[in-house]
Amino acid sequence: MKYKKILTGDKVVVEVNDLKIGGNNKPIFIAGPCSVESREQVIETAIQLKERGCDVLRGGAFKPRTSPYDFQGLGEEGLKYLKEASEITNLPIVTELMDETSLDMILEYADIIQIGSRNMYNYSLLKVVGGVNKPVLLKRGMSATIREWAYAAEYIAAYGNKNIILCERGIRSFDSYTRNTLDISAVPIMKQETGLPVIVDPSHGTGIKSLIKPMSRASIASGADGLMIEVHFKPENALSDGFQSLTPDEYLDVINSIKTLY
Amino acid sequence: MKYKKILTGDKVVVEVNDLKIGGNNKPIFIAGPCSVESREQVIETAIQLKERGCDVLRGGAFKPRTSPYDFQGLGEEGLKYLKEASEITNLPIVTELMDETSLDMILEYADIIQIGSRNMYNYSLLKVVGGVNKPVLLKRGMSATIREWAYAAEYIAAYGNKNIILCERGIRSFDSYTRNTLDISAVPIMKQETGLPVIVDPSHGTGIKSLIKPMSRASIASGADGLMIEVHFKPENALSDGFQSLTPDEYLDVINSIKTLY
Amino acid sequence: MKYKKILTGDKVVVEVNDLKIGGNNKPIFIAGPCSVESREQVIETAIQLKERGCDVLRGGAFKPRTSPYDFQGLGEEGLKYLKEASEITNLPIVTELMDETSLDMILEYADIIQIGSRNMYNYSLLKVVGGVNKPVLLKRGMSATIREWAYAAEYIAAYGNKNIILCERGIRSFDSYTRNTLDISAVPIMKQETGLPVIVDPSHGTGIKSLIKPMSRASIASGADGLMIEVHFKPENALSDGFQSLTPDEYLDVINSIKTLY
Amino acid sequence: MKYKKILTGDKVVVEVNDLKIGGNNKPIFIAGPCSVESREQVIETAIQLKERGCDVLRGGAFKPRTSPYDFQGLGEEGLKYLKEASEITNLPIVTELMDETSLDMILEYADIIQIGSRNMYNYSLLKVVGGVNKPVLLKRGMSATIREWAYAAEYIAAYGNKNIILCERGIRSFDSYTRNTLDISAVPIMKQETGLPVIVDPSHGTGIKSLIKPMSRASIASGADGLMIEVHFKPENALSDGFQSLTPDEYLDVINSIKTLY
Repeated sequence: MKYKKILTGDKVVVEVNDLKIGGNNKPIFIAGPCSVESREQVIETAIQLKERGCDVLRGGAFKPRTSPYDFQGLGEEGLKYLKEASEITNLPIVTELMDETSLDMILEYADIIQIGSRNMYNYSLLKVVGGVNKPVLLKRGMSATIREWAYAAEYIAAYGNKNIILCERGIRSFDSYTRNTLDISAVPIMKQETGLPVIVDPSHGTGIKSLIKPMSRASIASGADGLMIEVHFKPENALSDGFQSLTPDEYLDVINSIKTLY
Repeated sequence: MKYKKILTGDKVVVEVNDLKIGGNNKPIFIAGPCSVESREQVIETAIQLKERGCDVLRGGAFKPRTSPYDFQGLGEEGLKYLKEASEITNLPIVTELMDETSLDMILEYADIIQIGSRNMYNYSLLKVVGGVNKPVLLKRGMSATIREWAYAAEYIAAYGNKNIILCERGIRSFDSYTRNTLDISAVPIMKQETGLPVIVDPSHGTGIKSLIKPMSRASIASGADGLMIEVHFKPENALSDGFQSLTPDEYLDVINSIKTLY
Repeated sequence: MKYKKILTGDKVVVEVNDLKIGGNNKPIFIAGPCSVESREQVIETAIQLKERGCDVLRGGAFKPRTSPYDFQGLGEEGLKYLKEASEITNLPIVTELMDETSLDMILEYADIIQIGSRNMYNYSLLKVVGGVNKPVLLKRGMSATIREWAYAAEYIAAYGNKNIILCERGIRSFDSYTRNTLDISAVPIMKQETGLPVIVDPSHGTGIKSLIKPMSRASIASGADGLMIEVHFKPENALSDGFQSLTPDEYLDVINSIKTLY
Repeated sequence: MKYKKILTGDKVVVEVNDLKIGGNNKPIFIAGPCSVESREQVIETAIQLKERGCDVLRGGAFKPRTSPYDFQGLGEEGLKYLKEASEITNLPIVTELMDETSLDMILEYADIIQIGSRNMYNYSLLKVVGGVNKPVLLKRGMSATIREWAYAAEYIAAYGNKNIILCERGIRSFDSYTRNTLDISAVPIMKQETGLPVIVDPSHGTGIKSLIKPMSRASIASGADGLMIEVHFKPENALSDGFQSLTPDEYLDVINSIKTLY
C-alpha cells in the first residue's frame, strides 16, 4: 500500500479506444437507456444516438433497485445486447459493476466500468476496480462530501488504476421538487482537487425532462468534460426512469444547444 | 386579500430606471461590497465597477449577523455613502431592509429593496414590501424549498407589488466544502413557476473566490437573468466576507468570461 | 452593546407566575391548539387540559403560513379568547409575536412571547423581545445550526432579557417520512451551551400522532425541561395541523407515560 | 424471487445463543472497541465489559475507512482475538462483513454479521447475507430514508434471512456540531414498519462522549431494543474513534442510568 496521495490535481486524460476524456479535450456525450430491456430497445436506441452524435453507449444490465421486488436487470443477456449494439454502431459501452462476483463477465463486455452512486462507499469494490485495466466511471454517492468522493477515487488509484472519470449525479437535499439537487460546483472543485475528468448526469441529477437542457448547458459552461444522459427510443415504455428519459430527438436538441459553449 | 394566484408563470419584466430585468432582456450585473464600511470604500468601489461594466450597486448598511457582537453595519451613514456613490456613477442601488421600522429610511435611499435570506420567511416584512412601489430583490431562504420560495414571492405580489427579482444564493447541505450549495436548477424552475426574473449570487453561493467564474458561467448558461457579485476595492481589508470578495479586475474577468453565453 | 457573552452555560431558571422552568425543576407541559379558531374551541380545550394536568396554554392568533391565501389567524379576537380561557383556568398563555408592530398587543395578552421557527434569524425582532420584561420562548429555526440558535438566544440576552426558554421543534432533513427530524441531541447540547431551559415540541417535530408519545418520553429522558404539545378538543375540525393534534385524552396518556422518567 | 412483502410489522424476535432481541424482551447491550487493535486490547476490554454487564462484544477486523491510507483493520488476526475474547467471556461477537469474498471467514468467527452504514445500499451484499443462517445487524445508511432502510432489510428477508437487527446510527445533516444527527424517531417508526428489533448506536450517532448517556436514555425511553456503544479500555490509545469511546467505567455509568427506563 502506498501512502503518498496519487490524485493531486495533475490533469489525467482517460482514453477509451480513440476517445480522449478530460484535460483540454472537448466534452464527450454518453447516452442510452437506464436499463437494458430488450434487444430491439438497445440496438434501436444506439443507432439513433449514433446518428445524432454520441460517443459512448450506456445501459444497465445489473440494476441496484431500492426494492428487491423491482426489475433487477436482464443480467448477461442484457450485456450481450449491449455488445451487439456496440458492434453495429462502433460505440464503446459503459455499464455498471455491482460486485466482484460479476467482474469477469462485466470485463468481457464493457469498455468503461461504472461504479454507481450506491456503491461509492463500497471500498472492497473500489479496490477491485483498482486492479483492472479498463477505465472506471465513478458516480458520486448521493450524499457524499467532496472529500469522501475524492478519497473514493483515490482508493481506485491507490490500487493501481488512474483511469477514472468522475460523474456528478445530484445530491440529496431537503427539497423533493427535483429528484436530486445537481451540485454543479462539484465540477470545478473535483477537477481541481483530483485532476480527473468530471462529467455530469443531468437525468438523475434532476429527474425532470425539461431541466436536462438548461442543466446540460450549465454543466458544460462550468467546465464539465462531458454529459451522461438517459435516452430511450420509446420513453413511455421504459421499465425504469422513463419519466426522465429523453427521446433521441430531444437528446439532439440538448446536444445542439451546448455547441456554442465549449 | 385576493385568493387567485398572481405569479402563474407569465413573464414579469422588472424596470429600474431604464434597466429592464427578466423576460428576453440581457442579463444584468449587480456588484459591490457586502457591507458599506466607509465613504471611500463604497465610492471607490462603485467608480471602478462602473468603469468595468455594472448595472446596479449593492451594499449593506444594516447587516443581519449571526452574532450580536459582530459588526452590524453603519446604518443611515452607510446609506448616505451609497447614495453619494450612486450620484457619482449613476448606478441604481440595492440594499437590505431588515424591519418595518427602517422602511421609510431605506425607501429614501434605495432603488431596489433587498429581502435577505434570513427574512424570506418573515411574512410580516414580505407584506410590508408588498405595499411599496419599488422593486424587491427576494433572496432564497438558506433551506427554503422551491414551493416556499415561490409562495414568499406570492406574498409580496398578493399585497400589491409584482416587481420582484428572485435571487438564488445557495442552499444548506451536508457538505461544508463550500459555504453553501448553489442550486442552479432553481434558475429554470423558478422562472417557469413564477415568471419572475431570477438572478444568482455566486459569492454567497460558494464562498470561494475561484468558483465565482465557473458558477457565473453556469448560471448564465442555465438562463439566469443576472448575477450579484461581491466586489471590494480592497478585499483584504473587508469587515465581512472579504474572503469571497473579488477585486474590480477579478470581477471584470468574470464578466468577460460570460459574454459569449447569452 | 456589550461584547462579553452572557449565556455561558450557567443555569437560568425562568419564572412565569409561580411556575419555575429549567434548572432542577420538574418538566413543564405546554399544550393547546395550533391556532385559535373560535371562543368555544380555545376555552373548551383549555378546561380539558387543566383537568388533565397542564402548566401553560398555547395558541396562535397570528400565524406564519407558507401561503398568503391560508388562514392567517384571528388576530386580536383570538388573543381575547386566549385571555378568557386563561382567566377561567388560571393557565398562563404563550402566543407568537411576528413583528414589532403587534408587540404592544401581544404584551397585553401573553405571559410568554413565542418567537417562531421562521423568525429565529429575524434579528430585528430578537432585539425587540430583548427589551421586554416577559419570558421569551425561542423556537429553533428549521435548519438552524446549534451555533446559530445559541447566538439567536444571545441576541435576546444581549438586548436585556435573559428569561428565555428554548424549544427544539425538529429540523429539516432529506427524508419526508416525518414532517421534521426531531433532534433530541439538541436538548443536552443547548442546556450545556447556554444554561437555558430547553423544551421539545414533538407535534411539529414529527407531524405524526403515534410518534408523540415515544418522542415525548425520549425528550424527557434526555433531560428536557418540558414539552409543548398540540391539543385540540376536536382535531378533525382543526383549521391547521389537525392531523398532528392530540385529543385531551390522548394528551393525558402521553403525560402519564412520562411520569416515571423524571 | 418472492413478490409478497415479508417484513410487514409482525414482531420478529432474533435469538443469539440464549439471548432474545426484540419483541417484549428487555434491551440488550452491545459494546466493544471500534476496531480490534491488539490481543490485549480486545481481551481486556471484553473482560471489563462482561464484569459491568454486556450482552454482545463488538469489534471491527475489516474497517471501511474514508481514506485508503488509514488503518484498515487487522483482518483475520483481529477475528482470532475476538474469538479468544469471546471464549473467555462467553460473549457472542458481532463484526462487520464488507464483501462476499470474506464471507466464509467472517462466518467462522462471528455470531452476528454486521452490515455497515456504507454498505446499506450494497444490494449484492444484502442478498449474500440473506443466504446465511446467522443474524444480521443492519446499520442505517448515513442518509438513507426510512423507506430505503426498510427495503434494505426486506432484501435480506427476501433472500431467506429474517433474523435482522436494525441499528440507527445517526444521519447526515447540515450541522457539524455532532458527528451525525441521531434520529431517535426512527426507533418507533422502524419497529412499526418492519417488526424487527431496533437498537441505537449513540457513539457514532453523536461522536461526543458527554452525549452518550442522555442519548442512550432517550433511545431506551423511545422503545429501543438495545444499545451499541464504543468502549475501549484505553480510549486515548485507540487507532480509530478514540474521541468517542467510553472507558468501561463510563460505560457502566450509562448502563446504570437507564435501568429505570424499561
